[in-house]
Amino acid sequence: MIPAIEWEDGRLVLLDQRYLPGRIEFVRCRDFREIAGAIKDMVVRGAPAIGIAGGYAVAVAVRECRDGARGTDGKDRPLAIEADLEKCAAFLKEAADHISAARPTAVNLMWAVDRVLEKALSVLRDILRAGSGLETALAEAYTSALEEARAIEREDLEMNKRIGANGARLIRPGSRVLTHCNAGALATGGYGTALGVIRKAWEEKKISMVYACETRPYLQGARLTAWELTQDGIDVTLLVDSAAGYLMSKGMVDCVVVGADRIALNGDVANKIGTYTLACLAGIHDIPFYVAAPTSTFDPTISDMSAIPVEERSPEEVLHFRGAPTGPEGVKAVNPSFDLTPHKLISAIITEKGVIEPPIPENLPRVIKG
Amino acid sequence: MIPAIEWEDGRLVLLDQRYLPGRIEFVRCRDFREIAGAIKDMVVRGAPAIGIAGGYAVAVAVRECRDGARGTDGKDRPLAIEADLEKCAAFLKEAADHISAARPTAVNLMWAVDRVLEKALSVLRDILRAGSGLETALAEAYTSALEEARAIEREDLEMNKRIGANGARLIRPGSRVLTHCNAGALATGGYGTALGVIRKAWEEKKISMVYACETRPYLQGARLTAWELTQDGIDVTLLVDSAAGYLMSKGMVDCVVVGADRIALNGDVANKIGTYTLACLAGIHDIPFYVAAPTSTFDPTISDMSAIPVEERSPEEVLHFRGAPTGPEGVKAVNPSFDLTPHKLISAIITEKGVIEPPIPENLPRVIKG
Repeated sequence: MIPAIEWEDGRLVLLDQRYLPGRIEFVRCRDFREIAGAIKDMVVRGAPAIGIAGGYAVAVAVRECRDGARGTDGKDRPLAIEADLEKCAAFLKEAADHISAARPTAVNLMWAVDRVLEKALSVLRDILRAGSGLETALAEAYTSALEEARAIEREDLEMNKRIGANGARLIRPGSRVLTHCNAGALATGGYGTALGVIRKAWEEKKISMVYACETRPYLQGARLTAWELTQDGIDVTLLVDSAAGYLMSKGMVDCVVVGADRIALNGDVANKIGTYTLACLAGIHDIPFYVAAPTSTFDPTISDMSAIPVEERSPEEVLHFRGAPTGPEGVKAVNPSFDLTPHKLISAIITEKGVIEPPIPENLPRVIKG
Repeated sequence: MIPAIEWEDGRLVLLDQRYLPGRIEFVRCRDFREIAGAIKDMVVRGAPAIGIAGGYAVAVAVRECRDGARGTDGKDRPLAIEADLEKCAAFLKEAADHISAARPTAVNLMWAVDRVLEKALSVLRDILRAGSGLETALAEAYTSALEEARAIEREDLEMNKRIGANGARLIRPGSRVLTHCNAGALATGGYGTALGVIRKAWEEKKISMVYACETRPYLQGARLTAWELTQDGIDVTLLVDSAAGYLMSKGMVDCVVVGADRIALNGDVANKIGTYTLACLAGIHDIPFYVAAPTSTFDPTISDMSAIPVEERSPEEVLHFRGAPTGPEGVKAVNPSFDLTPHKLISAIITEKGVIEPPIPENLPRVIKG
């Protein structure tokens, strides 16, 4: 499969997911602002994937800082170390804030940005303390930051494989699994979270078919999930989002597996708009409702969903489809991009460290610290 | 407002609702097959409206029968009355079956077709019995059938005004009302059922705003409801279907009003796909869920929803939006056009004869017979 994110010749190359599956195009980002812009504009999307892209963006910001310190003459200039460390740190902090602000709901973005930033700053301080000049320190910091971003990407893929294995155990043979949005290879460092579970369970011949909700307004289910699963030869059937309840009432769905953009410490989940409705419907029809996400999705600063910010995107996404208007000119629209699912509606949260089963608030700390 | 259905110079002129609100186009139907085709292809849609169109289609079939009996010489031919009544009746019955089969879920279509057919056949028999020739009898039958179709249309508008008045009483001042699909003037003989309630309550200043679910795959909410309400100056905001649950969880919706395509004798309702999900969500959030429909929507032959046929339309509707594909080539889709809502999830059914409140199965006969 075409990777969603690739580091190539010092640039972050992003598969432009806005045009899939119709067109395969790439956006090549040279500076951190371009990467932040690509995250904001949904060139790259999916909580883990925007985390990975954000990590690379910080590394690129360190390189920009180095290039700035180097000046035009390309020589290492002996500057007052403390003062310039502060300037660099301020520049990097500002860059990190800019990147983190590109999308407000997914916590992986902030998590990855912080992780790479901390790595860069600590290397910077260490090298400066050891007596090297600022440019050397920044060059080292850049190398380390880039390695950290790569590590996040690599770890994400490994985590997804573990999530897949942990989740597949929950799937009963012959299951017809419903998923929403795209929590797949395109949304992650590869393999996917919800789709990682589906991939693994399919491999183990436990899944007879997958239902993918098309996921308006951005159609990630139709455009991305259906595309990914089709490429892997997994039997997938699309439906409009509002048909899920009918299918459940007819006994056509055996379980639901979705991803997550942020999880509070009590297990409440923020995920793509429509997730909460599916959880309500699964509850009514007594169908297991699983959330698959790496532990980086858990926000240690948030105790329950009331504190999770929900991104409100432009009404234009609702009012248009590929440039064609859906409604009359001038009509208003609301466009919350995510919704919030209380832990009580969740049958289990599947992480790379294990499965959190109800009572989720009680079992969560043990699993995510494990 | 532009009428959805108009009888003009012996033709049924249908506003082509497939192209609204972008293009105002009309389909002029000369024979009953053209009308049935327009119903099937959703040129005209909405249970009461397809009933009205179906009624006119039967009248047109009577005219075709008359033209056939008249032959090319235009003279009234003295035929064996009994034999030819049978032939005519068979032709009309076949035509009626063809028209009724255009859409399987809405019962108004069958109801209106049967009503006009019965009228035509009874006039035909009466005139023949009185000694007139077949052509004269068919001419009389055509006039009567056309008048019956017109009566259905006229009565529908009157019923909708009564539904509006009955329903508006249930709306509390300051309400933010959510509706689904289009149960408006475009779906009826005018004024609308669910939108009739909204129109009347808006007129009485009881509604602060209307939320319209866009209603994939056909986008009747975005294309038709938003258009209708905007034309009437009613404050309307669109949302993707999957956002309704989130809005309800945030306390942003005070009640839901939808139409119906068929209602069983225990009050179970078939309506546009997504209705059942809204009913489940309204139940969970303790929000009143109202169904507005004329009594012609009740199917006296069906005791509960298990016997209501649900139309499965072409997957292409899900897989395309105005010609542009939504998913990858060759992907499968399911496309149930309706779903079934059990009476237990309904707060009240609003008819032209009164409001049916829970327990709906017990209260229903009294109101619809009243």
